[in-house]
Amino acid sequence: MRITLKEAENHKGEQLTLQGFVDNIRDLQYVQFVILKDETGKLQMTVEKNEENKQLVQIISNLSLESTVKVEGKLLDSPKVKLRAMEFIPTQIEITSQAPMELPIDIKNKDAALRETRLDYRLLDLRREENNLFFRAQTLLLNAMRNYWYQNGFIEINSPKICAQAAESGAEVFHLDYFGTPACLSQSPQFYKQMAMAANFGKVFEIGPAFRAENSHTSYHATEIQMVDAEISWITSCSDVMDMEEEWLRYAFRELKEKMGEEIKEKMGIEITDATAPFPRIPLEEAKKIIQEKYHFESDRKDDLERQEEALICKYVKEKYNSDFVFITKWPFSARPFYHMKDKDGYSDSYDLLYKGLEITTGAQREHRKDVLEAQIKEKGLDPKDFEFYLDFFKYGCPPHGGFGFGLARVMMQIFEIDNIREATYIYRGPTRLNP
Amino acid sequence: MRITLKEAENHKGEQLTLQGFVDNIRDLQYVQFVILKDETGKLQMTVEKNEENKQLVQIISNLSLESTVKVEGKLLDSPKVKLRAMEFIPTQIEITSQAPMELPIDIKNKDAALRETRLDYRLLDLRREENNLFFRAQTLLLNAMRNYWYQNGFIEINSPKICAQAAESGAEVFHLDYFGTPACLSQSPQFYKQMAMAANFGKVFEIGPAFRAENSHTSYHATEIQMVDAEISWITSCSDVMDMEEEWLRYAFRELKEKMGEEIKEKMGIEITDATAPFPRIPLEEAKKIIQEKYHFESDRKDDLERQEEALICKYVKEKYNSDFVFITKWPFSARPFYHMKDKDGYSDSYDLLYKGLEITTGAQREHRKDVLEAQIKEKGLDPKDFEFYLDFFKYGCPPHGGFGFGLARVMMQIFEIDNIREATYIYRGPTRLNP
Repeated sequence: MRITLKEAENHKGEQLTLQGFVDNIRDLQYVQFVILKDETGKLQMTVEKNEENKQLVQIISNLSLESTVKVEGKLLDSPKVKLRAMEFIPTQIEITSQAPMELPIDIKNKDAALRETRLDYRLLDLRREENNLFFRAQTLLLNAMRNYWYQNGFIEINSPKICAQAAESGAEVFHLDYFGTPACLSQSPQFYKQMAMAANFGKVFEIGPAFRAENSHTSYHATEIQMVDAEISWITSCSDVMDMEEEWLRYAFRELKEKMGEEIKEKMGIEITDATAPFPRIPLEEAKKIIQEKYHFESDRKDDLERQEEALICKYVKEKYNSDFVFITKWPFSARPFYHMKDKDGYSDSYDLLYKGLEITTGAQREHRKDVLEAQIKEKGLDPKDFEFYLDFFKYGCPPHGGFGFGLARVMMQIFEIDNIREATYIYRGPTRLNP
Repeated sequence: MRITLKEAENHKGEQLTLQGFVDNIRDLQYVQFVILKDETGKLQMTVEKNEENKQLVQIISNLSLESTVKVEGKLLDSPKVKLRAMEFIPTQIEITSQAPMELPIDIKNKDAALRETRLDYRLLDLRREENNLFFRAQTLLLNAMRNYWYQNGFIEINSPKICAQAAESGAEVFHLDYFGTPACLSQSPQFYKQMAMAANFGKVFEIGPAFRAENSHTSYHATEIQMVDAEISWITSCSDVMDMEEEWLRYAFRELKEKMGEEIKEKMGIEITDATAPFPRIPLEEAKKIIQEKYHFESDRKDDLERQEEALICKYVKEKYNSDFVFITKWPFSARPFYHMKDKDGYSDSYDLLYKGLEITTGAQREHRKDVLEAQIKEKGLDPKDFEFYLDFFKYGCPPHGGFGFGLARVMMQIFEIDNIREATYIYRGPTRLNP
């Protein structure tokens, strides 16, 4: 069984085999210090330059940073050592892989390389501690999200990514040849999670990739994203969806704050959101009025929120209700897709969820009545024939249902206050980036 | 808040609103019985044909099976009712979606329709109870698998599905045009989970789609599959990988057996595997000898196991060790991919895991030394130039590492004794099936 560098402290005085990357080397006149690292932490290895250690000294003298080693020896208490007050005294060092003396980017200094260069050498860039922390936090958050759903009777689905039709007409999709038939990559699991509702799955979730062939080079677009989606049946309005999303996010953020909040604050200076306060629900028109009255900002767009309006209403909600989240409700149908249900006042029965000044989710009750759906497709100037496969989902009985979806990276960017999606994705894909 | 048909029993005597599909209707001389269903269960609704109920009786007379309804009324104890000894007495019935009088397949009788017809109407096929049970079990299993990994310090990765290069040369891949650059769909996260090892992620997992452009029409091939993958660093041989996979599967199967074992046995007659016994580890040559001596079966293939040999060695292991699982170790390098490490005897340091007579996983220690890897690529008659992007992962120090991967549907087929992958996938994709 492997002993990690963190666990090693439970084995002081024993004969141990440890492994790690070479994080740092200080070669002094009488002694060599090597800092080892693995994904759990760091440890100092000390070699005195004496006759007995001749071979070890020789190995360390030729060692390059970021090589990997396997070492045998003993871990001892050592109050004078700054790092964890302990040091490893090796009797054997084996180099298990050799890095070159010159690395293409400086792992210790993020700003020494351009972002694109760091992305070229993403595997080195990912070795930075804050990246490790970021992906551990994402793992925790995803696990908490799924656990909530699992405990609440949701079924996990994996909808197909190769599809005959595009989910939303007009949007840009990747095309491929499927054994002689034209096909495309899924932009969203939207339609297939609705099919699960028609299949009596009741409540479903999916966390999986979606593909967007948009030639956008902004800081928040990517051609391949990770989508987080949920859909529930037998609702009576989109309030039921908001209730679910709110309770679910509250659970996930509590887990993140409890288990990693301190570490994140210490290492990155970021306070994880306390999501215990209720998320206010404000109709769009009222939100616009508040923004205008309180911040004297008026947008030309009546049916949507501008970026600045999102920021302002979030500022207001944070001050008034101490919430980082706010639901904006009652949207004009003109601003929403054809498959949203209309409420009794003719509004789209849907919401946007804003988080720390940015829209992160759209949720809605879906129109599940085939005839109404067809009428709404026409109202949007689209052709029902293009949506035949989707309309078929509503032919044989379908529960009233609704749900939401969002891009994982976008939420992670907001949590960690990262300004570019390229830094919030394991391996980013954009119009000019297909490598590594 | 919605009350499910299962939860309704906690609200007897209260004024309730319930929703569900119409599962069955019996229209008798003096009374109408409607069986409602949702994803949690079934419930009888009873309407007496009297003057007061005239409108309700009228609605039910025109009701079609599989429509959805919203009903108001009271749930009462009723010992004479076979189903749960209770009945719902409605005062209002609203049809929320209308199914046609004739359905294209008979949901109650699986065998009444050809498989391909059932796949055409997959959303109706999925309404069968055993499908609901299957996907709830899969959800539980996936959740247990991820929880184990989460609790053991693994990081979740989402590797890119659009790639510049194919993972394994020669295999059939889907090609697409990526903004003018040729690209392909990922056949496996293999290379990118290895990159995570080089990135000091330590231990990772991924559950996500993989794409195979094979024109195969067998019962266990699909063009889009869900892969379950894990990879760990700082190992000393593939035994470490086997240790992890064994402990992990034991945990997941225990969860499945404890939480759903009885229900699955009752409804489907299937006994969930007890994975508590250690999984035996048998070298290939020894396995062949056992098969020959005990079952007098000899295969022409010396470097691999035939299907019949897999069945026989599993039969032997089940009888001798009471295990449904067995690891077959020490494979000839000729039968394995170039990236497997060779052990000191020149064998591939890898294993196959067999489960109930079928190979479900291949695991291995990977070769992490760039020069050795290049030599192995050449030994296989391949060109290192075709793997340059992959070889780059090993340029800047890389821990010794290994892992495994498998297709989720294949394991679910074995657990549920399903003989066709089309029945074990939410929405199946094959060379001639791109719909729904």
